[in-house]
Amino acid sequence: MAALREILGDRGILSGIGAESYEEGARFDKGKAAFVLRPGSTEELSKAVSYCVRNAIHIVPQAGNTGVVSASTPDASGNQVLLSVDRLNKTIELDADNRSVRVSAGVLLSDLNKALEPDGLFFPIDLGSDPRIGGMLATNTGGARFLKYGDVRRNVLGLTVVLADTEGTVLEFGRGLRKDNTGMDWKHIFIGTCGFFGIVTECVLNVERLPQETATALLVPAGSQKVMPLLRVIEDRFGADLTAFEGMSRNSISAALEHVPSLRNPFPRGEVPDYVVLLELSRSRLPREGNETLDSELASALEDIWGLDEPLLADAFIGSSKEMWALRHAISEGVKNTGMLVAFDLCFKRGDVMAFCDRIKGDLVGRFPDVGSYEFGHVGDGGIHFNLVAKRDSDTARDPQFERSLREWVYDIAVNEFGGSFSAEHGIGRKNQAFYDKYTPTAIRDMAKRLKEITSPGGLGAVRLG
Amino acid sequence: MAALREILGDRGILSGIGAESYEEGARFDKGKAAFVLRPGSTEELSKAVSYCVRNAIHIVPQAGNTGVVSASTPDASGNQVLLSVDRLNKTIELDADNRSVRVSAGVLLSDLNKALEPDGLFFPIDLGSDPRIGGMLATNTGGARFLKYGDVRRNVLGLTVVLADTEGTVLEFGRGLRKDNTGMDWKHIFIGTCGFFGIVTECVLNVERLPQETATALLVPAGSQKVMPLLRVIEDRFGADLTAFEGMSRNSISAALEHVPSLRNPFPRGEVPDYVVLLELSRSRLPREGNETLDSELASALEDIWGLDEPLLADAFIGSSKEMWALRHAISEGVKNTGMLVAFDLCFKRGDVMAFCDRIKGDLVGRFPDVGSYEFGHVGDGGIHFNLVAKRDSDTARDPQFERSLREWVYDIAVNEFGGSFSAEHGIGRKNQAFYDKYTPTAIRDMAKRLKEITSPGGLGAVRLG
Repeated sequence: MAALREILGDRGILSGIGAESYEEGARFDKGKAAFVLRPGSTEELSKAVSYCVRNAIHIVPQAGNTGVVSASTPDASGNQVLLSVDRLNKTIELDADNRSVRVSAGVLLSDLNKALEPDGLFFPIDLGSDPRIGGMLATNTGGARFLKYGDVRRNVLGLTVVLADTEGTVLEFGRGLRKDNTGMDWKHIFIGTCGFFGIVTECVLNVERLPQETATALLVPAGSQKVMPLLRVIEDRFGADLTAFEGMSRNSISAALEHVPSLRNPFPRGEVPDYVVLLELSRSRLPREGNETLDSELASALEDIWGLDEPLLADAFIGSSKEMWALRHAISEGVKNTGMLVAFDLCFKRGDVMAFCDRIKGDLVGRFPDVGSYEFGHVGDGGIHFNLVAKRDSDTARDPQFERSLREWVYDIAVNEFGGSFSAEHGIGRKNQAFYDKYTPTAIRDMAKRLKEITSPGGLGAVRLG
Repeated sequence: MAALREILGDRGILSGIGAESYEEGARFDKGKAAFVLRPGSTEELSKAVSYCVRNAIHIVPQAGNTGVVSASTPDASGNQVLLSVDRLNKTIELDADNRSVRVSAGVLLSDLNKALEPDGLFFPIDLGSDPRIGGMLATNTGGARFLKYGDVRRNVLGLTVVLADTEGTVLEFGRGLRKDNTGMDWKHIFIGTCGFFGIVTECVLNVERLPQETATALLVPAGSQKVMPLLRVIEDRFGADLTAFEGMSRNSISAALEHVPSLRNPFPRGEVPDYVVLLELSRSRLPREGNETLDSELASALEDIWGLDEPLLADAFIGSSKEMWALRHAISEGVKNTGMLVAFDLCFKRGDVMAFCDRIKGDLVGRFPDVGSYEFGHVGDGGIHFNLVAKRDSDTARDPQFERSLREWVYDIAVNEFGGSFSAEHGIGRKNQAFYDKYTPTAIRDMAKRLKEITSPGGLGAVRLG
């Protein structure tokens, strides 16, 4: 520890009470770190990693620690060292011509966007939480505007990574180019792999123009089978202006309305429909004089949809973007308060989303009688936060095997029957390690193990991909 | 060979005259194959690869063979086996809800687009040539509408790959999901690596809605320093409707006009400006009644740009999209006819493109007196086809060291001074192998070598990434 203090200085190493806030995750988990390292530069981080690898100390990297699968906290042993990038928060260098920004891994998403705003730009990954950039790369987050802007991976133009080898090797890939096909694109090994292959300390990100005009509506599809045809009509009509197409079930909306008192119930007579889609259109420019506003274009489109031979809509409300998104973003909070929550972060081919939901909901009553479904999510890209909640104090909630057997049942249907993903945008951590092991073929886990030997042979990460 | 004939049947193996058309590349190269394998399915391909690996036969995979860096033809030894995927051309399965298509690697880009057209869709990688899909994945092609749709990588949602190991292992990644963060995204190892790590036999691709309305203009910037400000104004104004921003130098336009007689000179009095930008806007829907057309929006935007305090434009012409793109696409043909061509496929941060061109052109006269520059390309994404042409029969063209020394000079400035890429969208083949070896750090080449041992330990590919 004295050697590490020499590398990092007094500010760069914490233990005891100072370390506690780093040991607890956003949900579920609390671990115990031998100590916490907080390097102030890539060079310091490299030296510290080198020291740890040479002394067989296992490192768990951490950025904003807002993830929900226990990928950024130490285990309970007290033997792992936590390495936080939170002091790597100095660099935010905009290259306006290139429409890119160089950012260090410890910068908060909100601070990055604050720095970009005067230039009319933003990093277009829209999340409820406020992570640090390094964590966003580690989990390859998607978010609510994925449909238009894609995931983090699509927006990474370069990265600097420190490997957990005896030298703490520093590698730089990309440098901000948009087209570069000179061999393997190594960036992708370090994106979405939760720090298993190396620690990202800096990156170059694509940024986008801030929307200047938005139009938002709540649509009530005429039955779950009409959700996809509705999406396709909207995509045909609005193309690249379609920013979000988010589904919310009645239970999830009701939970939000009940438990978040600041929300207004937007539905006539307060009757929450079976299923509602939050639709958002946006453009990075204002309409020119004499042309329709986006609100008016949306209204005409909805009129045309009402006029179709195939009825797709049961109801529709154009309204305040702020209010509608407040409802959407309050669902997590609302659902948490309804009982014992078991949250699933799933993805399907888009046409399978509603079929999967119907399938599970149909069988749920028989299998888990005290469990209700509160699903919502990014239907436009196939993603769904499928929340199942057991009634508080029910036999089911008290059964210590309940969560495990529910997860096994849901994941088997999602992965084996529907060919879906059991972790759409949360990544892999201790929380879902067992399911990674179960659903990942041995050949792939072996490849991951050998790839780790190539990149970071030292002990690294909360997760084991191979 | 009898064993391979048993696996593949008579149609699946060629030698002698039948093999010749496979041995010659689109440019530069002609090799000699021991024989040509043409498996009819992934299973057949896997068995053939397994046989070759067990018998230490080196395989060079080939798709459409339209590449220009000798990445898909055998060497001259006569010992390598060419493996063509051209018979894997049966599968084109559209999933309209998912807006994706499952395609086998031997399908031609043109055939894929023909199959998608009735549904108003297309695969949005716009190229002058007509490659097979497998080759597009192998080189991660970009093309002229990259600015809006990205490269091949961004549009791959899944792939099936055969590894060159003793079993001919078949792996499937992705399956068409848009969000899937369950560990390493292995697809990326096989995209842009020219068949070095495995042979892609099938993939799932994102498809886009066909444009319904386009507007095209030729812009003459008021000097090379005004190209980037012009791009930024256009991006601010048109956002996601900006499809292409292609630069063309006077020399390159003149070469096209001179050598492609079907072209009309679009400039007043036939005077070709120093530098011209082809601007394209497009939308996947028609304007609604009462709203401006895209042509009219473009005209207003150009008027506003004329009115700016900072003069950005010297001239501008809105006109026939077909005619303007014909000019743009004729440049390659035109330039080839002007003398001895040394073609460069470079990429820079966008703000560096014009500075690089000015730098090279400034020094060219002194260093290579008989050489002229004929650059054009995708300035909007930092890509540039920097063509240098030596006068036919000049001393320079006759100097056997000329091409090598020119390449070394240009690449050193591009890579070392400007931090650019020496292969933006053509990939790595025998043609630029030496420069890969020169500019890729030893640590990275070692990692690639070890990654190949993990994936495809057998002899595979025309290129050596490690």
